[in-house]
Amino acid sequence: MTQSNLDPRALRSALGTFTTGVTIITTRAQDGTPVGLTANSFNSVSLEPPLVLWSLAKSALSVPVFTAAEHWNVHVLSMDQQELSNRFAAKGEDKFQGLMLDEGKTSAPLIGQCSARFQCRTAFVHDGGDHLIFIGEVLDFDHSELPPLVFQSGQYALTARKPREAVTLSDIQAPLDCCYTEDLLGYLLGRAHFQMMQKMQQELAKFGLGTAHFFALSVLSIQGKLDLAGLNAHISYTGHVLEHEHMQQLEQAALVNIEDEHYQLTQEGHQACLGQIAQAKAIEDDLVDEIGRGDVTALKLLLKRLIRQTDPGLPDLWSGR
Amino acid sequence: MTQSNLDPRALRSALGTFTTGVTIITTRAQDGTPVGLTANSFNSVSLEPPLVLWSLAKSALSVPVFTAAEHWNVHVLSMDQQELSNRFAAKGEDKFQGLMLDEGKTSAPLIGQCSARFQCRTAFVHDGGDHLIFIGEVLDFDHSELPPLVFQSGQYALTARKPREAVTLSDIQAPLDCCYTEDLLGYLLGRAHFQMMQKMQQELAKFGLGTAHFFALSVLSIQGKLDLAGLNAHISYTGHVLEHEHMQQLEQAALVNIEDEHYQLTQEGHQACLGQIAQAKAIEDDLVDEIGRGDVTALKLLLKRLIRQTDPGLPDLWSGR
Repeated sequence: MTQSNLDPRALRSALGTFTTGVTIITTRAQDGTPVGLTANSFNSVSLEPPLVLWSLAKSALSVPVFTAAEHWNVHVLSMDQQELSNRFAAKGEDKFQGLMLDEGKTSAPLIGQCSARFQCRTAFVHDGGDHLIFIGEVLDFDHSELPPLVFQSGQYALTARKPREAVTLSDIQAPLDCCYTEDLLGYLLGRAHFQMMQKMQQELAKFGLGTAHFFALSVLSIQGKLDLAGLNAHISYTGHVLEHEHMQQLEQAALVNIEDEHYQLTQEGHQACLGQIAQAKAIEDDLVDEIGRGDVTALKLLLKRLIRQTDPGLPDLWSGR
Repeated sequence: MTQSNLDPRALRSALGTFTTGVTIITTRAQDGTPVGLTANSFNSVSLEPPLVLWSLAKSALSVPVFTAAEHWNVHVLSMDQQELSNRFAAKGEDKFQGLMLDEGKTSAPLIGQCSARFQCRTAFVHDGGDHLIFIGEVLDFDHSELPPLVFQSGQYALTARKPREAVTLSDIQAPLDCCYTEDLLGYLLGRAHFQMMQKMQQELAKFGLGTAHFFALSVLSIQGKLDLAGLNAHISYTGHVLEHEHMQQLEQAALVNIEDEHYQLTQEGHQACLGQIAQAKAIEDDLVDEIGRGDVTALKLLLKRLIRQTDPGLPDLWSGR
């Protein structure tokens, strides 16, 4: 092999476009010390016999341990194990501190709460340039429903999975002269928002209350006590403006107390808010059941990024309470 | 190695939790025929020397070609290449039909529009059970800004990337007694929607028009001509109900014609709608610049899944036009 004249940093960056899961590989040194590291170079090789592989830098401190070890475990990390991934990616002596280990087939440490685990016996070790390629026979494995953690271009990520069938809202291809399509983000956000709100609005309508009242109750449930200007500072970006009349209607419905031109929830108001939040959470739980917790978490992450990007400078709803 | 008593289907399912990118590997048979297949068993091995690997089933028809070939190219597919992935995953003789190939360092076919490409020379071929492990030296590579296609548990996926810093809206950890947190999906959707709408509402406010008018204009821009009941069938899920008064205001603003109790956009109305859509698209483009096209596409996919899940049975906005 000739000396490469490729730029290693550019190569690393190009290789990073290949998305991977994140694994922790563990084994036990001959003195019994647990050893582990984070790797994204894992891949499956063969089903019959069951073989998997991963690569270890020849410069790694754990090379002597892994080359001497007969057994090692691969843990495909779940999206809740990002901290664990960071811990095992860093150098440190007590990576296993505080970790409850499960009982495995071999002495290799077995970590819980993963998406999948593969208990392996070294089958071959091949030379791979500045890395060693470990190929292991899978002796046992298990997997959970926990959504996996993902790594891409040097960043952690979550996945938005595509169902086999195309996800469309309309059966019709929008005509070319119609530039308002179902692919317009603004349309999708509005429709998603109003569909989520619909049940809550139906509840409020029973009291003769509308969207502005709903926002007033929500803000008071977080902020405690506010005057009209304080309420509107949180609400006006919605296009709804609260008037004294709205607040009087909430007082008549016994949901809000008015004192010294400041408003706060009554006991019934608190109950109503708890009911609303429970309803919102129930809709969210249905969505988790339908499309998966990983996908819903990805949706929330993306919405937060959008909100930060388009924030007109709203006051922090949870501060100054 | 002993005969495994592991269930191959369960093993395949557990291995599938490890997320991967999707690659197409290409080479050229000795008679010059281009050969290629989809593989997600790719991974980087070494930077110095630059080595990558992938596995090929021993049962694959292309085994003789790849074992004889000196060179092959790895294409990390972009999210727009899902059809290409399917084409190269299926058996077929004319996988390359209609593909424009780029000029590479070797005779191996080089496909365009990928996230990254690695032009390789076989360094080693190792036995890996029912697969062969090809290790190649990278002779040349390039990469683009195109977001990559992802594969997880038998499904294609997109990624929602996590920035290094935590993405939060509030500096405050919500108090334990406050169950209305920034993590409530309903809150995030509402805030995202209203922040996107804000600029458009400011434009409308100049004409003395509000949200209900905006929805009326939007529906008419797609549906052409509707009466009040027809308009409200599309709009009432938003909690807004259009009255004749709204439509008269739109007529006074010269945006809508009223004829025989049916409404349609005037030339000015069409222009106003085009302006609104352009504004919505500009906000969306800013978001793409900020968080990336892959992430915005993931957001839209997830919103569509949410909308289908929570759809109260709305009429198709794009049909019956």
